[in-house]
Amino acid sequence: MLNSYASPVLNPSAGPFPGNVKVGELLYANVVESVGEGVEKFKEGDIVVPVFLGSCEECWDCESESSNICTKFAFKVEVGMPRDGTSRFRDGKGETLHHFLFVSSFAEYTVVDVAHLVKIDCGIAVDKACLLSCGVSTGVGAAWKVAEVHKGSSVAIFGLGTIGLAVAEGARLRGASKIIGVDLNTEKFTVGKQFGVTYFLNPKDCQDKPVYEVIKEMTNGGVDYSFECIGLASLMNDAFLSSRPGGGKTVILGVEMHGAPLSINSMEILRGKSVMGSLFGGMKPKSDIPLLAQRYLDKELNLDNFITHKVSFEDINKAFDLLQQGKSLRCVIWM
Amino acid sequence: MLNSYASPVLNPSAGPFPGNVKVGELLYANVVESVGEGVEKFKEGDIVVPVFLGSCEECWDCESESSNICTKFAFKVEVGMPRDGTSRFRDGKGETLHHFLFVSSFAEYTVVDVAHLVKIDCGIAVDKACLLSCGVSTGVGAAWKVAEVHKGSSVAIFGLGTIGLAVAEGARLRGASKIIGVDLNTEKFTVGKQFGVTYFLNPKDCQDKPVYEVIKEMTNGGVDYSFECIGLASLMNDAFLSSRPGGGKTVILGVEMHGAPLSINSMEILRGKSVMGSLFGGMKPKSDIPLLAQRYLDKELNLDNFITHKVSFEDINKAFDLLQQGKSLRCVIWM
Repeated sequence: MLNSYASPVLNPSAGPFPGNVKVGELLYANVVESVGEGVEKFKEGDIVVPVFLGSCEECWDCESESSNICTKFAFKVEVGMPRDGTSRFRDGKGETLHHFLFVSSFAEYTVVDVAHLVKIDCGIAVDKACLLSCGVSTGVGAAWKVAEVHKGSSVAIFGLGTIGLAVAEGARLRGASKIIGVDLNTEKFTVGKQFGVTYFLNPKDCQDKPVYEVIKEMTNGGVDYSFECIGLASLMNDAFLSSRPGGGKTVILGVEMHGAPLSINSMEILRGKSVMGSLFGGMKPKSDIPLLAQRYLDKELNLDNFITHKVSFEDINKAFDLLQQGKSLRCVIWM
Repeated sequence: MLNSYASPVLNPSAGPFPGNVKVGELLYANVVESVGEGVEKFKEGDIVVPVFLGSCEECWDCESESSNICTKFAFKVEVGMPRDGTSRFRDGKGETLHHFLFVSSFAEYTVVDVAHLVKIDCGIAVDKACLLSCGVSTGVGAAWKVAEVHKGSSVAIFGLGTIGLAVAEGARLRGASKIIGVDLNTEKFTVGKQFGVTYFLNPKDCQDKPVYEVIKEMTNGGVDYSFECIGLASLMNDAFLSSRPGGGKTVILGVEMHGAPLSINSMEILRGKSVMGSLFGGMKPKSDIPLLAQRYLDKELNLDNFITHKVSFEDINKAFDLLQQGKSLRCVIWM
């Protein structure tokens, strides 16, 4: 029931190892099936959410309130377990199968390092909790913890996928008065309204005017907060140019698809602008995911509308098709 | 006695116009000689500091605490008075001479719009006060208001001219524990110590290792705050790479000499880093310059050591030579 990550076939013989927790999916819950030697903070039966961003809970960054970039488990794309690089998966012929982002949750059972696991004990249903393991937390966190969106402010969001819509949801909860969504898919406007988007801009409809010029005209010189949620260097620049001189912030959330650099006018940034990036929206997984789960239970945070589809494990490719066609936000996969 | 700006020969017949104040230099003071129609906040005899950054004191930005980028008098490089573009200067043959950055203070008399004038009534000597009209305020402000340097933090400063040293001074006053100055001119280390620089790095001495790698090694992964005070896109990138993942801030103060864009690794900024720019160090001229003057009188802010030379008006070219040779910080010109 964990969205977002491709994983291989489970090796049923993969046992728990020191520092790891084996997570099974049981009916509506992601529960810990067993724990390895030395694991103290998790036990069999715990409800957990696995996350790609590790936390050792001991380094300067983990202990600080401002950083979510653990020094010990620095973010990287590797194919094995974080502490030793080994794999716990084999296919039917005994060939090694790789882990993905330390989570590998498209499986009935997986082995996850405790650094990548968050305990949830507030009673939230796991088909909602799983949304907090990546996209929704990233977007809400970017609005709350990175940009620190304030009441009455103006916001532009480039890309209305789940992350962009979660930015809108975060901005809505912070009381932003103008939330402009930018997307080439016009259907996203209807969807966006559910998360607080107040204006919709399709760059195709801007009559040869750059979209940032339209946004500047709509907001008396630029938005207070601009978010790039796609991963294109050209859009990062558009987002930057949409932000206001004298305090405008641009938040980069998209991972640039082609590895291109972020390139912006060096004179323009001197006008009191800033550009900030974050992984996981600046959220600290271990402490912030439980808080978001509680906000959902308190009926403040909208998670339900992100779930547009549910499929069974054997239909997992249908989930990918829906995502690529822009027809789904989050598709929960029942194992 | 106002440093920093080139100005033409004064037209002695230039009278005050509505919204303008004529500033004369009298012994040790920059005093208002007369005011134009409609000027209410200045009167003959006031001690003033002219600044390139205008403030209308009425727009959203001027009224906000966070922005120093006035909407009405937006920063631009123009050759005339800000409200009507006219010049108040003629040479001996009656030819128009241009204004420079609305201040044109290399003159015995000049005409300045009230938006570009700050009243100082705390008793500071004007040969100190003039330092606050640009470089020192920019550097101190960048440390205080843009980066918000905190106690015990680490700082890297690229370029130890007056702006860079003023950043060090600001960081010192905020209690930064490690202040790394980077400059090709080794003599700057001795100078830098006066303003709190604790370590000096000459990129030439880094044994083919990029200077940002050396800084990362010195600071367990990167500094909390990095400042580019020269105006080179490549150094902006070096400054960025010197900052720590998980909250590292890079402040751009230099105006890029060749108009090159700021180009940084788009994946690197996602590790919780930010890049911010500012004019005048985010300081609001009308309210912050008087506060800095008071901090000087309270013997907290070091202004005296920035004044390395004093020359008379007829030796103004000597002042430029010293600056270009890296031999002076600020050279006060006596009119």
